[in-house]
Amino acid sequence: MNEKGLLIVLSGPSGVGKGTVRKELFSNPKTTYEYSISMTTRLPREGEVNGTDYFFKTRNEFEALIAQDKLLEYAEYVGNYYGTPVDYVKETLNKGRDVFLEIEVQGARQIREKFPEGLFIFLAPPSLSELQNRLVHRGTESSDIIASRVEKARKELEMMNLYDYVVENDHVELACERIHAIVLAEHLRRDRVEARYKKMLEVE
Amino acid sequence: MNEKGLLIVLSGPSGVGKGTVRKELFSNPKTTYEYSISMTTRLPREGEVNGTDYFFKTRNEFEALIAQDKLLEYAEYVGNYYGTPVDYVKETLNKGRDVFLEIEVQGARQIREKFPEGLFIFLAPPSLSELQNRLVHRGTESSDIIASRVEKARKELEMMNLYDYVVENDHVELACERIHAIVLAEHLRRDRVEARYKKMLEVE
Repeated sequence: MNEKGLLIVLSGPSGVGKGTVRKELFSNPKTTYEYSISMTTRLPREGEVNGTDYFFKTRNEFEALIAQDKLLEYAEYVGNYYGTPVDYVKETLNKGRDVFLEIEVQGARQIREKFPEGLFIFLAPPSLSELQNRLVHRGTESSDIIASRVEKARKELEMMNLYDYVVENDHVELACERIHAIVLAEHLRRDRVEARYKKMLEVE
Repeated sequence: MNEKGLLIVLSGPSGVGKGTVRKELFSNPKTTYEYSISMTTRLPREGEVNGTDYFFKTRNEFEALIAQDKLLEYAEYVGNYYGTPVDYVKETLNKGRDVFLEIEVQGARQIREKFPEGLFIFLAPPSLSELQNRLVHRGTESSDIIASRVEKARKELEMMNLYDYVVENDHVELACERIHAIVLAEHLRRDRVEARYKKMLEVE
């Protein structure tokens, strides 16, 4: 009878505070999402547990998984692979639990291709509101500063193109509230509720 | 620079508790929606103020407004017209404020036709969850009762077809929280945020 969970993908420009927002979300007991465990070829550090902190794999194992299309996304940093194993994500979603992923924009783009039904949230720097203030109070700032802000805003605008929602990270608590609201609202979409209803009535 | 407000339409089967949910929403100071004032041909009762409780009109005035397509929806009850004036709604939305309407399903259907971009929320009785329990614990109830519940669920399912979201009215406070989450999430949809962003950058 259980409905499938949602794949929640939080991404955004580097430095926007994705990690801070994720930690705040998971320190809240009302957060019921499962955090997606990454897979890596780097060696476990002291105290790290396989299947809790990471899924630790050899380079050969990781490359075999790439070849078998078993990663939602992956990338190589400083000689080690990091990726998101698709089986863990799918099994958790099938249990009816929401899975939460915090990831760089490149990884988010790979996931959108393989998992278009995911819920893609763009964490935006407060530059939109800042820029608005700057434009309103122009004259107090050099036109160079304004021009560079406009350029930055244009880049962010291009980046957010593949996302479903935009959450401004002006305050981490507010950003978390907005993410919770988005996830709750998504669960209440008529097409989801209707599908659950229909499935129940089919049994009759 | 202001973005247009959202037209929030709350509807659902009669007896589901729409009025109770609306009163609870508007007793909460964090609710920032404007309540849409209805228009009627019935005479004002003692203490009722034109433009606050209702817009009071004569039958001729009301019928002229119908002819001019100035009502988002209307109906006749016991010899009096009741309707939603479109000008008030549009002016409020243009000020960037969300407008909230609590209305019967027939009226909601008329509004969906004239204002498809509205946010349509179906308030559902807790019969879905109840039915699920009944089906799980079947054997403790007569098959007649279950059959009538299944029939009721089928009708609700048909009714919710034109809505964007379904909110179960199991507890009025929970229903209000869900409505707030839906409205907040809608404001964060990428296409809305992006449009605001773009408008700002166009000025440059």
